[in-house]
Amino acid sequence: MNARPEFIKPELETMSLGMTERLKPLHEAVATMVRDEIIPASAAFEEAHAKAPDPWTYTPEMLEIIDGLKAKARERGLWNFWLTDSERGYGLSTVEYAYLAEEMGKAPLGAETFNCSAPDTGNMEVLERYGSQAHKDKWLGKLLEGKIRSAYVMTEPQTASSDATNIRLSCVRDGDEYVLNGEKWWISGAGDPRCELYIVMVHTPSDDRPKHQQHSQILVDPKTPGITKLRAMQVFGNPDAPHGHLHLRFENVRVPAENLLLGEGRGFEISQGRLGPGRIHHCMRAIGQAERALELMIKRSLEREAFGQPLYKLGANYDIIAECRIKIEQCRLLCLKAAWMMDQGDPRQAGPWISMIKTAAPRMALEVIDEAMQMHGAGGLSQDFPLAHMWTHVRTLRQADGPDAVHRRQVARRELRQYTQEKV
Amino acid sequence: MNARPEFIKPELETMSLGMTERLKPLHEAVATMVRDEIIPASAAFEEAHAKAPDPWTYTPEMLEIIDGLKAKARERGLWNFWLTDSERGYGLSTVEYAYLAEEMGKAPLGAETFNCSAPDTGNMEVLERYGSQAHKDKWLGKLLEGKIRSAYVMTEPQTASSDATNIRLSCVRDGDEYVLNGEKWWISGAGDPRCELYIVMVHTPSDDRPKHQQHSQILVDPKTPGITKLRAMQVFGNPDAPHGHLHLRFENVRVPAENLLLGEGRGFEISQGRLGPGRIHHCMRAIGQAERALELMIKRSLEREAFGQPLYKLGANYDIIAECRIKIEQCRLLCLKAAWMMDQGDPRQAGPWISMIKTAAPRMALEVIDEAMQMHGAGGLSQDFPLAHMWTHVRTLRQADGPDAVHRRQVARRELRQYTQEKV
Amino acid sequence: MNARPEFIKPELETMSLGMTERLKPLHEAVATMVRDEIIPASAAFEEAHAKAPDPWTYTPEMLEIIDGLKAKARERGLWNFWLTDSERGYGLSTVEYAYLAEEMGKAPLGAETFNCSAPDTGNMEVLERYGSQAHKDKWLGKLLEGKIRSAYVMTEPQTASSDATNIRLSCVRDGDEYVLNGEKWWISGAGDPRCELYIVMVHTPSDDRPKHQQHSQILVDPKTPGITKLRAMQVFGNPDAPHGHLHLRFENVRVPAENLLLGEGRGFEISQGRLGPGRIHHCMRAIGQAERALELMIKRSLEREAFGQPLYKLGANYDIIAECRIKIEQCRLLCLKAAWMMDQGDPRQAGPWISMIKTAAPRMALEVIDEAMQMHGAGGLSQDFPLAHMWTHVRTLRQADGPDAVHRRQVARRELRQYTQEKV
Amino acid sequence: MNARPEFIKPELETMSLGMTERLKPLHEAVATMVRDEIIPASAAFEEAHAKAPDPWTYTPEMLEIIDGLKAKARERGLWNFWLTDSERGYGLSTVEYAYLAEEMGKAPLGAETFNCSAPDTGNMEVLERYGSQAHKDKWLGKLLEGKIRSAYVMTEPQTASSDATNIRLSCVRDGDEYVLNGEKWWISGAGDPRCELYIVMVHTPSDDRPKHQQHSQILVDPKTPGITKLRAMQVFGNPDAPHGHLHLRFENVRVPAENLLLGEGRGFEISQGRLGPGRIHHCMRAIGQAERALELMIKRSLEREAFGQPLYKLGANYDIIAECRIKIEQCRLLCLKAAWMMDQGDPRQAGPWISMIKTAAPRMALEVIDEAMQMHGAGGLSQDFPLAHMWTHVRTLRQADGPDAVHRRQVARRELRQYTQEKV
Repeated sequence: MNARPEFIKPELETMSLGMTERLKPLHEAVATMVRDEIIPASAAFEEAHAKAPDPWTYTPEMLEIIDGLKAKARERGLWNFWLTDSERGYGLSTVEYAYLAEEMGKAPLGAETFNCSAPDTGNMEVLERYGSQAHKDKWLGKLLEGKIRSAYVMTEPQTASSDATNIRLSCVRDGDEYVLNGEKWWISGAGDPRCELYIVMVHTPSDDRPKHQQHSQILVDPKTPGITKLRAMQVFGNPDAPHGHLHLRFENVRVPAENLLLGEGRGFEISQGRLGPGRIHHCMRAIGQAERALELMIKRSLEREAFGQPLYKLGANYDIIAECRIKIEQCRLLCLKAAWMMDQGDPRQAGPWISMIKTAAPRMALEVIDEAMQMHGAGGLSQDFPLAHMWTHVRTLRQADGPDAVHRRQVARRELRQYTQEKV
Repeated sequence: MNARPEFIKPELETMSLGMTERLKPLHEAVATMVRDEIIPASAAFEEAHAKAPDPWTYTPEMLEIIDGLKAKARERGLWNFWLTDSERGYGLSTVEYAYLAEEMGKAPLGAETFNCSAPDTGNMEVLERYGSQAHKDKWLGKLLEGKIRSAYVMTEPQTASSDATNIRLSCVRDGDEYVLNGEKWWISGAGDPRCELYIVMVHTPSDDRPKHQQHSQILVDPKTPGITKLRAMQVFGNPDAPHGHLHLRFENVRVPAENLLLGEGRGFEISQGRLGPGRIHHCMRAIGQAERALELMIKRSLEREAFGQPLYKLGANYDIIAECRIKIEQCRLLCLKAAWMMDQGDPRQAGPWISMIKTAAPRMALEVIDEAMQMHGAGGLSQDFPLAHMWTHVRTLRQADGPDAVHRRQVARRELRQYTQEKV
Repeated sequence: MNARPEFIKPELETMSLGMTERLKPLHEAVATMVRDEIIPASAAFEEAHAKAPDPWTYTPEMLEIIDGLKAKARERGLWNFWLTDSERGYGLSTVEYAYLAEEMGKAPLGAETFNCSAPDTGNMEVLERYGSQAHKDKWLGKLLEGKIRSAYVMTEPQTASSDATNIRLSCVRDGDEYVLNGEKWWISGAGDPRCELYIVMVHTPSDDRPKHQQHSQILVDPKTPGITKLRAMQVFGNPDAPHGHLHLRFENVRVPAENLLLGEGRGFEISQGRLGPGRIHHCMRAIGQAERALELMIKRSLEREAFGQPLYKLGANYDIIAECRIKIEQCRLLCLKAAWMMDQGDPRQAGPWISMIKTAAPRMALEVIDEAMQMHGAGGLSQDFPLAHMWTHVRTLRQADGPDAVHRRQVARRELRQYTQEKV
Repeated sequence: MNARPEFIKPELETMSLGMTERLKPLHEAVATMVRDEIIPASAAFEEAHAKAPDPWTYTPEMLEIIDGLKAKARERGLWNFWLTDSERGYGLSTVEYAYLAEEMGKAPLGAETFNCSAPDTGNMEVLERYGSQAHKDKWLGKLLEGKIRSAYVMTEPQTASSDATNIRLSCVRDGDEYVLNGEKWWISGAGDPRCELYIVMVHTPSDDRPKHQQHSQILVDPKTPGITKLRAMQVFGNPDAPHGHLHLRFENVRVPAENLLLGEGRGFEISQGRLGPGRIHHCMRAIGQAERALELMIKRSLEREAFGQPLYKLGANYDIIAECRIKIEQCRLLCLKAAWMMDQGDPRQAGPWISMIKTAAPRMALEVIDEAMQMHGAGGLSQDFPLAHMWTHVRTLRQADGPDAVHRRQVARRELRQYTQEKV
């Protein structure tokens, strides 16, 4: 068999990875706001949070900061960029959105300022596509306005999240309700007092359906009786309050039957759509963090002296700076191409590209941030620079939405299938 | 010039890196106590600490745990192993001590249990060698009994710690006292309420002395007026309470003149002796952490299933396990050789070996721990396993006692000098 | 200073890295010819060469193969693609050309078949731009028709080629002639009996001109008396006959004065133009070789069995295949972007991009080819597969046209200059 | 289960990896002879070979060089060091031998000069242990005196050499003879006109015996009718004449039945003993090559200038030199420990250590040599320095005696078995 590389395909003729005319002013506005307003505000927010009596609350000072940013962004029309198809949004392509996501990644409050945070963007898409009018009235409007937050409740402590068919949170029909029992963990955003919606992946087994149709998704109000917040999972010792990654217990949690989306067994069908863009957004934000780390590294190397010379002249520092730049550029381009593949509308074609960047981007960002920390001396590991927090955050991406190994396997299988009909 | 590799030297004939007969029962006792008592007690200690109203205190429960361990260790004669030359200790060689340090590294409370913690061991050595009888009476006895702790106060925020000649904390003679002014940071252990001694590196400039004789070391009581604990430096967001790495301010801190060790300008002479063994101890403990991470990784790979198979059969996991083992063994041997070189009594010869292992060991341990975290899924990054904390701790070693780049340069210069008379 | 990343610039709006409509049929034709005709013919050519009594000649059988390929290519209009601006060529952009160069890189005779070999393409450009009508009549026509070959004579044995200002081959005016004295080595193609032109970088010092205007380029007939072929430089033991990388001696070689291009001191000005595209062509061909190596690796992993299983199921082979794909895609995109930057017409802007890909592409290709060799067992290192020869060839690219270290430095300097006015 | 690391075992107490008193003068003599005589003679030998009319012969000049070296070595008592147990040798331990092997590895003729070449050393051991008196009279005496050479004939073109149970060269009893049919390749030394013995691994299947008792070893005179030298396998294009790695065909090759060693089905039993030491010898010689490459690299960095500075001051060269030293030292120690494990007499215990160093040493040496080549510019890849040939030679070690992947798997299985009873 004579396989030919993918790029011979006709659709590649138009592969445009640059910024479009319409994107340019948006990008300029977002980049400027991140640099001049959100980065300083993020630092102020963290200071305010450090003073909060309960880390799991938003003090008035904190709310003032974040709501102030959101109000400004909305006022300037920098809002809900992720609304790719809707008439209510800019209708940006994934490539265009990627450029904005990179900028948002540079500040902790970046994505939320523009109402483009995970998991809300994916959750809003789910509501838009699969929710009833009642669901939309209850949750979608408020989410679109940035008034509430939401969580996506999928991972379980007792099962390898690399294989989602193992999910076992029980969901049994009882009259007009479903009854949920089980545990979930790493539920990001569930610590946020503003979180008013859980979208929960549950197990609704039936012998009549195949292996990938044993699960469903259901909308749950976090205040429903029977839900216990067991604890906050820590990321390298940090509970990430008030956002939080919670460990939850569901005990006889009763949910209206109409909250089950699409129908029993269609859980994976729903999640299919959300993972692709979400992964690319994570990657692009990670690239933004790498870019910011490189900037900090270079500035440090110019300002700090040792042995009578600026750091950049010492050791392998020219090479370190250059290698970081080379890595970032390659990753950004791969991410843009993955975004472009998604824009072509065939998720099966785009799949391996998403797996590629999902593997490559966090690893690259970790390397760049690590070098930046090293250039900053002991301070680089501390609260005096954003680097340590960036590192621990990006490290979670190598586990979230599928660990590296699973994505590598996807990429390899696609390669092998070019040359064989066998199941690889 | 025809240089010949170092190992041709006669002294190598006896290079014995194994355990001696006398070490064996000590090692067995330490390894067993770490595994069976200290690892569980460390977990209990962390739980107790989590419940403490003030993280910078020792609650009775915490004290009971740590003092209980220490009492048992002392009772069993497993105490002050670091006392290499003294008649009060075992007189272990650095090689022998290294085997014990590796075991101690496997538990957070490991080193303290046996009264072998940094920086106390180095500080006790300084007191022993350079302290007056009054100093010994006041501090050394209590330190040897594990009743108090101490800190080594060297690093400053405004100077690259890679070049210690930049240290600027002012120390001016005024009558029978010295007056100290300036700031220090990353003072490990200064947060501990039991800390009763600072050994402070200060600047005592004089045009009469060369560049490396501008500094001195002075003993300071932490309660002396004028010392302010500005804040705790965080390591990846963790203040490491109650131990702590504090940022201190010295404002007109008056210290008795007799507390200055050896004499003005002899600060580096004193620190010379402490860094070599200290670095090796750090490295060996890091190797112990890598060994524990590998054990956790393998057990996880046997217990956890995905896609119907135990993890060890999936992906590159055989290779990952093997590569970790290969890396650990190489590092352990290099560390033992560096220890052996130190035991030969010529610090100038041992220097490059210490620099080599100081570069190699933390990097190796970080790689192994990182793979172990990845094998544990999201949980690997959380409080449910010791891995994340191990990673952040070992990461600091790439900065502490000289960043990697400085040590690499030392190694390279020694290589170059084999073939040239020029200053390299 | 608030630098902004390069991609915010307006020109990026149009960054199209895909294949254009007009390129597609050309690419299809070239890819097909490489796969179906040139790869088999390259093998036959090597067999014929192995039987040649003198490895430095073209036997009739060899000539028949290569001339046959060239005739077919020319007949099909697949000829001189590199003629980017000329009305005689396709006027392809560098991006478009890059796609073709990748395909050509997959077979040893690939580039020559389409009259797109280095160093002829660069030499033809030099003749086109800077040659007199007489030069064009004598050499350019024959080169454009693929009837003769040429060499670019720059590197010298006694000077670090990373710093071209050191070039010392003496060129002194004597009446109507210049007299050349000195040595050159690594003169690729100088072994080819069809080589009828040397373009020689010479030293023509003058105190009146600055450091970068001390050199000139001059056209030399290889048969001029005084030129001695001292020896063939071997690449990993291979003299690469009949092409060859020769070590030449010039002893009182007299060349007509009108053969000096542009004027004394303008040597670097001329070479400026040739290095950029040449480097990208090398990189794209290297990427083609990586792509072919990956194809061979995957096919081998499907066909070969060990321990009762196809190789791809063993060890880390899924991961190896996936990582190779990820590396190739990132490099290809970076190469396309560097090509696109060149197409924007500002060599100063394009410079760092060329340095980036010049560093990244050979390294990536070496890694992929090495893994492919490993997957092929001992055979992978032998003449039974093209991999070993690919590896040694690509290895030379890390030295040719500037070693990696020099290019990394260029990249780093550009980064540093974003934030400082100082000379870095 | 509470596994304990291997080094707790009692036998480790004596782990002495240094040079013994008796080794020191031998090492000094070998190191000096390699440096002062064998390295220059190796270069002269290569020149003489380049002038030989037939590369597969030894010209008188070549014989004079190699026989002269051997005569001197023997005269000085530097001979057959590998004879570890015999009263005819020094009775060196594997650790002691390793120090000598490292020195021998530094010159192409190093091992042969001291009659310590592969595969002769292993073959002599086989003859010593398993040969009849007739075999010893015919071959062993001459081999011990360095008068003839031998080959070990194992690898086959159609089977993955990673799984030796696939070997299929047919060996059928016919009266007093065995009749051999099949093909072998990569038969190192079979090109040498002085080669007078093949030890051939053959397939002698029987349903009565288990999977690992289907093969035998038989002694074959290379001049036996029916053996055809099909071709020389090339290593990166180099046939490695006159030594050679031949592809052989066996057609009805009739061999006296008494030449079959030990009995049918005992082939693997015989090879068991030879692989361990052989692999360590290869590794130690590779380390010697790395050491020589580092020496060349450093000298070059001191002598060569670019941009007005010696190379060592440029780029990352301090770091490169230091990292190479760190890698070499770690590998040497691991190799010495593997040798020491072998000396303890339990091959099952030593197995994983041999696999570890077999994986680590060639990879390390390739990295160091590659950096040395890069420091030498284009010349580093050529015949002007020994580096390129060193690289290609060491590259074969990643395939010979089991590819890396197989050894990593062995290491991993040993790790896993610490914690499970299952078959891993």
